[in-house]
Amino acid sequence: MLPMPTLEDIRQAAARIAPYAHRTPVLTCSSLNHMLGTEVFFKCENFQKVGAFKFRGACNAVFALSDPQAQRGVATHSSGNHAAALALAARLRGISAWIVMPKTAPAVKKAAVAGYGGRIVFCEPTLADRESTLARVQQETGATFVPPYNDPYVIAGQGTAALELYHDTTTLDVILAPVGGGGLISGTALAVTALSPTTRVIAVEPAGADDAYRSLQAGYILPAVQPRTIADGLLTSLGDLTFAVIQKHVAQIVTVSEDAIITAMRHIWERMKVLIEPSAAVPVAALLENKISLTGQRVGIILSGGNVDLDRLPWPAAV
Amino acid sequence: MLPMPTLEDIRQAAARIAPYAHRTPVLTCSSLNHMLGTEVFFKCENFQKVGAFKFRGACNAVFALSDPQAQRGVATHSSGNHAAALALAARLRGISAWIVMPKTAPAVKKAAVAGYGGRIVFCEPTLADRESTLARVQQETGATFVPPYNDPYVIAGQGTAALELYHDTTTLDVILAPVGGGGLISGTALAVTALSPTTRVIAVEPAGADDAYRSLQAGYILPAVQPRTIADGLLTSLGDLTFAVIQKHVAQIVTVSEDAIITAMRHIWERMKVLIEPSAAVPVAALLENKISLTGQRVGIILSGGNVDLDRLPWPAAV
Repeated sequence: MLPMPTLEDIRQAAARIAPYAHRTPVLTCSSLNHMLGTEVFFKCENFQKVGAFKFRGACNAVFALSDPQAQRGVATHSSGNHAAALALAARLRGISAWIVMPKTAPAVKKAAVAGYGGRIVFCEPTLADRESTLARVQQETGATFVPPYNDPYVIAGQGTAALELYHDTTTLDVILAPVGGGGLISGTALAVTALSPTTRVIAVEPAGADDAYRSLQAGYILPAVQPRTIADGLLTSLGDLTFAVIQKHVAQIVTVSEDAIITAMRHIWERMKVLIEPSAAVPVAALLENKISLTGQRVGIILSGGNVDLDRLPWPAAV
Repeated sequence: MLPMPTLEDIRQAAARIAPYAHRTPVLTCSSLNHMLGTEVFFKCENFQKVGAFKFRGACNAVFALSDPQAQRGVATHSSGNHAAALALAARLRGISAWIVMPKTAPAVKKAAVAGYGGRIVFCEPTLADRESTLARVQQETGATFVPPYNDPYVIAGQGTAALELYHDTTTLDVILAPVGGGGLISGTALAVTALSPTTRVIAVEPAGADDAYRSLQAGYILPAVQPRTIADGLLTSLGDLTFAVIQKHVAQIVTVSEDAIITAMRHIWERMKVLIEPSAAVPVAALLENKISLTGQRVGIILSGGNVDLDRLPWPAAV
């Protein structure tokens, strides 16, 4: 297994990405606080470059490369926010990013990656073809693989959001973040445990994609089998590194229903006037569903992203 | 005609509302700047209390009342953001707000006002009945009428948004704001003219509700006749005070199409991850439609509000 990042790695990541990433604001919502009897601080990674925290990890990985390495470019497989993030980070460093993507990916996602200058390489929508296509790209180009989450540089980069949240608020009792592959929750947990040992880190997962919950219970990684959730950023399974961090530093994983995710997303849109994607609504859903009792506590929530297809909203429209 | 507020009035308003109103953030959007070749600073009044700049004016008017006056409450006619704003301002002062509203108003608007503790008094959906109902309420209660826009305290309150924008940015070449009844643009123009005489103030209006544009051309107030626009905050006609300020201090009024308003609204949602209502998208539409050439300039835009009915979005949905 790769080494776990330390707080020092996260601080180095913060310095490395500072010229490129937004220091995103922390917002509060008095109606929500009133309703829940808590004080919630939202770290708005939906305002991050490419609209998601993923830019932090990709940017850290890209700018940590030596010049000779970097010149051969970077590569990954993803059709989501990591793909867009890696494409932009590579462009900012002036190098190529090859993005292996199933040819069945939605047009809007292809356009996003292309818009950031990523070189899309299509594959069949199977794990085998994705991996062989990525291997071929690496062989042909010498590009460095930047994994979506199971990587110390990526995890350290994602941890910089919690680092900023820690500096921008007074001590929090709890921090909530969604868990998919585990990059965000691992980085968050590593930062928070080192900075504020009394703060509990809780991961929240859709009940329809509860592989992290089941893995933590089982004590070994269980893959996501036919996950079904609107939170399309959370469909992936854990990696060995993210799982190890979660086992060591995450207090609890709670699961939430699809209805609660949609309600939470809409609540944040309506009350805070801030667009979040379904994956970002997952921790908010845990509060609204009363899955964790946090009355009287100071709660940090990382709103992970804001990339939503406005033509496919999960509620009816007039037109 | 009532006296025009001065910069000093606006400063007093800022001090008066400071304990209650948000000092809203100023956001930028690099993709939009790149696309337009300008530098745009968005003053996010959609994040203001009740989701709109209207809270500033209502709060200033309510807290400027003497105690004996205040104790008899306040009243207005509105079914929109001013109604919600006055209800909340009154609640914060611990007094009653009577809101005269047509009984045909959408349920979501009634609920908003009631949610802030406003006492709704229904009237027939005619101007005559609205005015007689308001007169009756005032007579019965002794409440002070707080007009939606044609009032020095309300205008001074709305001007505090531009005051903050001025302090939070370096000198702007232009400031854009929407015009409906003219409260926001008047307050903005009064603040900006006094603080930065070289900054041009431009009002933007939907072509389907272009009474301010026509009034400025005619030299006297022309009423809005059957206005039709998705920007439902901009349906009203000017008042004598707001018209006088516009004549004196607004450089230009430009009009924009409905398509441009919807495109602009969607652009801000998608790129900035920030919810704005159609009225707030109106000045953005002027940029996207190239109605004013602002290349190379520093542009301030007041995003006036973010109250949108998510069940009635102006584009198709999947469900």
